[in-house]
Amino acid sequence: MVDYVDLNYEPTSKDLIAMYYVDKAPECKDLQHACMEIAKESSIGTWTEISTMYKEITRKLKPFVFYIDEKNHIVKIAYTEELFEMDNISQILSAIAGNIFGMKKLHSLRLLDIDFPEDIVNSYKGPKFGIKGIRKLTKISNRPLLGTIVKPKVGLNEKEHAKVCGDAWRGGLDIVKDDENLTNMKFNNFEERVDKTLTVRDQIEDKTGEKKFYMPNITAKVSTMKERADYVKERGGRYVMIDIFTTGFSAMMEMRDYLDTMDLAIHAHRAMHAAFTRVKEHGITMLVLAKLMRLIGVDQLHTGTIVGKMKGGKKEVLNINKEITEQQIHGNNKNLLSQNWYGLKPILPVASGGLNPLDIPELIETLGKDMVFQFGGGTHGHPDGTEAGAKAIRQALDATLNNIDLREYSKFVKELTRAFEKWGKYTINV
Amino acid sequence: MVDYVDLNYEPTSKDLIAMYYVDKAPECKDLQHACMEIAKESSIGTWTEISTMYKEITRKLKPFVFYIDEKNHIVKIAYTEELFEMDNISQILSAIAGNIFGMKKLHSLRLLDIDFPEDIVNSYKGPKFGIKGIRKLTKISNRPLLGTIVKPKVGLNEKEHAKVCGDAWRGGLDIVKDDENLTNMKFNNFEERVDKTLTVRDQIEDKTGEKKFYMPNITAKVSTMKERADYVKERGGRYVMIDIFTTGFSAMMEMRDYLDTMDLAIHAHRAMHAAFTRVKEHGITMLVLAKLMRLIGVDQLHTGTIVGKMKGGKKEVLNINKEITEQQIHGNNKNLLSQNWYGLKPILPVASGGLNPLDIPELIETLGKDMVFQFGGGTHGHPDGTEAGAKAIRQALDATLNNIDLREYSKFVKELTRAFEKWGKYTINV
Repeated sequence: MVDYVDLNYEPTSKDLIAMYYVDKAPECKDLQHACMEIAKESSIGTWTEISTMYKEITRKLKPFVFYIDEKNHIVKIAYTEELFEMDNISQILSAIAGNIFGMKKLHSLRLLDIDFPEDIVNSYKGPKFGIKGIRKLTKISNRPLLGTIVKPKVGLNEKEHAKVCGDAWRGGLDIVKDDENLTNMKFNNFEERVDKTLTVRDQIEDKTGEKKFYMPNITAKVSTMKERADYVKERGGRYVMIDIFTTGFSAMMEMRDYLDTMDLAIHAHRAMHAAFTRVKEHGITMLVLAKLMRLIGVDQLHTGTIVGKMKGGKKEVLNINKEITEQQIHGNNKNLLSQNWYGLKPILPVASGGLNPLDIPELIETLGKDMVFQFGGGTHGHPDGTEAGAKAIRQALDATLNNIDLREYSKFVKELTRAFEKWGKYTINV
Repeated sequence: MVDYVDLNYEPTSKDLIAMYYVDKAPECKDLQHACMEIAKESSIGTWTEISTMYKEITRKLKPFVFYIDEKNHIVKIAYTEELFEMDNISQILSAIAGNIFGMKKLHSLRLLDIDFPEDIVNSYKGPKFGIKGIRKLTKISNRPLLGTIVKPKVGLNEKEHAKVCGDAWRGGLDIVKDDENLTNMKFNNFEERVDKTLTVRDQIEDKTGEKKFYMPNITAKVSTMKERADYVKERGGRYVMIDIFTTGFSAMMEMRDYLDTMDLAIHAHRAMHAAFTRVKEHGITMLVLAKLMRLIGVDQLHTGTIVGKMKGGKKEVLNINKEITEQQIHGNNKNLLSQNWYGLKPILPVASGGLNPLDIPELIETLGKDMVFQFGGGTHGHPDGTEAGAKAIRQALDATLNNIDLREYSKFVKELTRAFEKWGKYTINV
């Protein structure tokens, strides 16, 4: 019987390390036994001894369970990179995040983090633009980018959509994006929407002298996404948005390649992530998903708001943002592994979901300035409409960057005053 | 304020119906309030009243929460099909299985089932082969197909791999497949593996006069999958295997189209499904994922073994198999919606994971004959090796189909006797 547990094993620079939270099934002997099962099923083993296993294979390929924290159920396993097709995230997940989630010998299992070795990191392009590239593209250097999502999520026709975008840009926002469920609808054709919206963008850029950005949602079958990206490029767009998890990893790898030559930045919406990230004892963390997206190379990624309508604790969101923006991560024995990103560009984090202008001081204090802050309802829900909502957001940002209290500043600007009337006592934190 | 709850609403033939298990957050007023939030966030609403919402939009597009079972937390919502880009599963999921999983107002949420309306069903091709097509392809009509997975999962080189396949076919198995984590490895090149394995297949077909099948795992980035499929076709292959969830929905839609003209059957491996299907109160059921795969059109799908190493209760597996094989499903108010498949072909269910020859009587009794039964460890783990293991499986099948007790039959066939020696007292059911 092959032994997969070796607490004295020291991982090498050719190892991929996975960190799991493991809760064994009651009938499974002990945690060590559960770890063996995980290591086997995610690599070279199966449930019974087999005649086709050679010693040479176990010598070269078997993984090592090298850390077991019985009390906290934390386990680390080192897998030699030989076990992986390095530039194939789908294959990597099929191994270390595949069958093991369904094993009867476990009660639950959570993939907490993955430390990718240099060879694997180097197999990926990473973001094309990254934070610096986005800063250069947008010509905005010392403040967060401000955006909105066209609301209602779906329902407006192309012309109404373009008008809402125009109002938001005119009010002072930098970016307008489609919502995650708006693609090519009967009542709102993709190409016509892009066409009308970019026409409005050009007009407003001329008027204001500011650069304005539209992020159309191209989420679809791969060939359709390519056609839509082509159309966006042809019409002078600079961004596309993709729902990265409802499309999936294979499509994202394909689209990153395809867009590489087209100079279109990728805005990544994470709809559906919480189906597998939310339960604390099972599934895959958002941290892992975000790391996979840094490897593949999206330029902007929704990672949480802390204060908004979506679940995501402060520590978790800050950890994720650190992970996707820094070059060297120092791990712990709790929930984070070390990671050297070997020069792969950082992703610009996006905070979006339930935000309003009055959240800006807290957003900047907790999340910093290298961010995209998006206000959907927080723009169009302003009592005086989208343009006023956009103005209130810019006012709140100006005040915050100049260390002026928002309530104080609102005495001088009516849009912010009106925002206080609506949201001054609002809290979405349940 | 738009009201999304109408318990008197009667869904129309143009509605998509979603059934959820909903557990509200403690701070959320009541279940009805939680349902409103789900209906809003998955369609046209957001967290605050907005200026850009028109009455006409709510009239045309708002969904209806029309069933609430407070006691069991079961909720049904009808969404007009206008809310969806019909042939775009990624978009459909971004709406009804997207942000809502992450909302603070919910404690947990599970998408139990989706009833797709005729227009949406008709937007998809469904399986190209289906059960009849696979029966025709394999020329096996009155019994389950028998297969194995090459084991160890990874580690064999191309020649060793081909030899194991040959042994399994020679012993009497119909199908050999790659494992979910075997793609193109340093120690086992995809093209060389396909080449060598199909060469062996041809030899054995000549010798035995039986049709034999190899299902190579093409899981990768989309363009790489296409290249690999091309190669398989060119070399005379008849099947490809894809890890459907680690690749993803967009890639699967693309590959279904691509393979349509190539006459290659699609074997769908569900590695990673349990990351979002396993927890009973959250995520997405395997039933939903299986239905999405019937729309897209895979030909064979892993749905559970009941008796094997993977989690999956009897009722659940039988429900899934019924759903992907029948034309008209009759729902209940618990965990299943009605579904008319409007002629879309059935998928052949695959039972795989921890099975051995002695399980066959129970497998046939519970799952029937329109199945693929796969034995990985249960073939190569036979005390006398792969060929003997394959023989034992065929013997067990012959006995079962002739209503002969396996223990009785084993007196006349040594491979089955030896299988009893190893697995006669084994139970994987923990």
